[in-house]
Amino acid sequence: MSATVLDGTAVSHSLLDATAARAAAFAASSGRTPTLATVLVGDDPASRTYVKMKRSRCAKVGIGSRAVELPASTTTEQLVAAISALSADPTVDGILLQHPVPAHVDERAAFEAIAPGKDVDGVTMHSFAAMAFGEPGFHSCTPGGILRLLDAYDLPLTGRRAVVIGRSPILGKPVGMLLLARDATVTYCHSRTADLAEAVREADVVVAAVGRPELVRGEWVKPGAVVVDAGYNPGNVGDVEHAAAAERAGHITPVPGGVGPMTIAVLLEQTVRAAEAGR
Amino acid sequence: MSATVLDGTAVSHSLLDATAARAAAFAASSGRTPTLATVLVGDDPASRTYVKMKRSRCAKVGIGSRAVELPASTTTEQLVAAISALSADPTVDGILLQHPVPAHVDERAAFEAIAPGKDVDGVTMHSFAAMAFGEPGFHSCTPGGILRLLDAYDLPLTGRRAVVIGRSPILGKPVGMLLLARDATVTYCHSRTADLAEAVREADVVVAAVGRPELVRGEWVKPGAVVVDAGYNPGNVGDVEHAAAAERAGHITPVPGGVGPMTIAVLLEQTVRAAEAGR
Repeated sequence: MSATVLDGTAVSHSLLDATAARAAAFAASSGRTPTLATVLVGDDPASRTYVKMKRSRCAKVGIGSRAVELPASTTTEQLVAAISALSADPTVDGILLQHPVPAHVDERAAFEAIAPGKDVDGVTMHSFAAMAFGEPGFHSCTPGGILRLLDAYDLPLTGRRAVVIGRSPILGKPVGMLLLARDATVTYCHSRTADLAEAVREADVVVAAVGRPELVRGEWVKPGAVVVDAGYNPGNVGDVEHAAAAERAGHITPVPGGVGPMTIAVLLEQTVRAAEAGR
Repeated sequence: MSATVLDGTAVSHSLLDATAARAAAFAASSGRTPTLATVLVGDDPASRTYVKMKRSRCAKVGIGSRAVELPASTTTEQLVAAISALSADPTVDGILLQHPVPAHVDERAAFEAIAPGKDVDGVTMHSFAAMAFGEPGFHSCTPGGILRLLDAYDLPLTGRRAVVIGRSPILGKPVGMLLLARDATVTYCHSRTADLAEAVREADVVVAAVGRPELVRGEWVKPGAVVVDAGYNPGNVGDVEHAAAAERAGHITPVPGGVGPMTIAVLLEQTVRAAEAGR
């Protein structure tokens, strides 16, 4: 038996097509294109590549982007001021602060300078609480993308045991809250979990979101389980021992081509939604 | 074998004594007493009793209180305006909106009118996210009280499996986040959980916070586990089948005299902290 692959590339294309249509409709009725401001601090090559890719995807679906580039020496106060200016700018619909920021910057303070209505990357405390409480707001993009991918395959969540490995503010914690809102029984595992293998063995849905190559062994996977690999590691290796897990899982995301494309698609969809809401 | 009782009454007295000392010090240095505004909407007798009790406890530790009483016909807009006025009032340090509010009122909108720096009951989205992310802020009082009670008995949490039954915005969800911040492996269970008994059997720490009398059967409790009963039900019955659970548990909270006194003590302590911070 081999698992059904959860094809994030294909599902993201549907979402991107719908987003492009909405962006065009917005532009036609408002006379301006939805606009994402990207904020990059410093010279990290990977961060620069991510921002470039996101701006390129914006262009493809008819979303404008505005690049704000700040030197690595930028202080927290300067970064907060720059983001606050974008929050107040009526021609900016969404704001993306590429992270991580340099170590001397208070990343949380910078995130919190993003107006909730422009937090299309879902990084603010307001957005997190909105996800947890089922209030209106934007999703963190990777968690939102994971839920959309599961939904595209009509995978049931109610009453299922979901294990989330990782507890970061923009990935592990919010994806657990979104799964809980969908009536899954959710367990958060992390580096201090005593027996990760046992927790995974009990899970109907596993979300690996910790950034440790092949941490989740294939033999731990419950037969028929849904395995979502949200790990980013060098060499296109995820957090799951993919081939072995695919032998047992019912559904599994590939790396790349699983969660990654969904993340960007949600960012763009939310940017258009922010524009629509602000009109 | 019988469980050690987690004596919330005794532990709360220590906290109340310390709070009284801080309130007196604040009054001596600032020339005014820390002040809690209580907001009561409508005529629910239980809610009225709770508010009266909280104001009485305030008086005992040297905290002033200001009672705002509004008719059951109060609209969301009127309630938000009243709370916003308290948020802006420099003589008010903390704000408690007694809940539930009447069904026609948007409770979330009312909560969000509380300034984060005065949210001594820990009900705002900001406070929730702060608990989840380990940022500065106030705890929801019952979750904060539970953690303080466990700490008073030096009960270890790191790596332990904790099961939280219930997912309300002011109890289940935040207590899970606080346990996660203390490195427990946290599982959220709820009404749609397929096998609650199985989940409880695996738990080193059980927090029952759902408001269903004796939902948690004594025979489910893992020998030696820590059992926290945060249920409020008529007749002083908690969410745990107490006598049977106490036979198996290592530590257990009584009802009453467990979580309840800790909840009020945290409310008062946080009111003094708000006053100190606002000085």
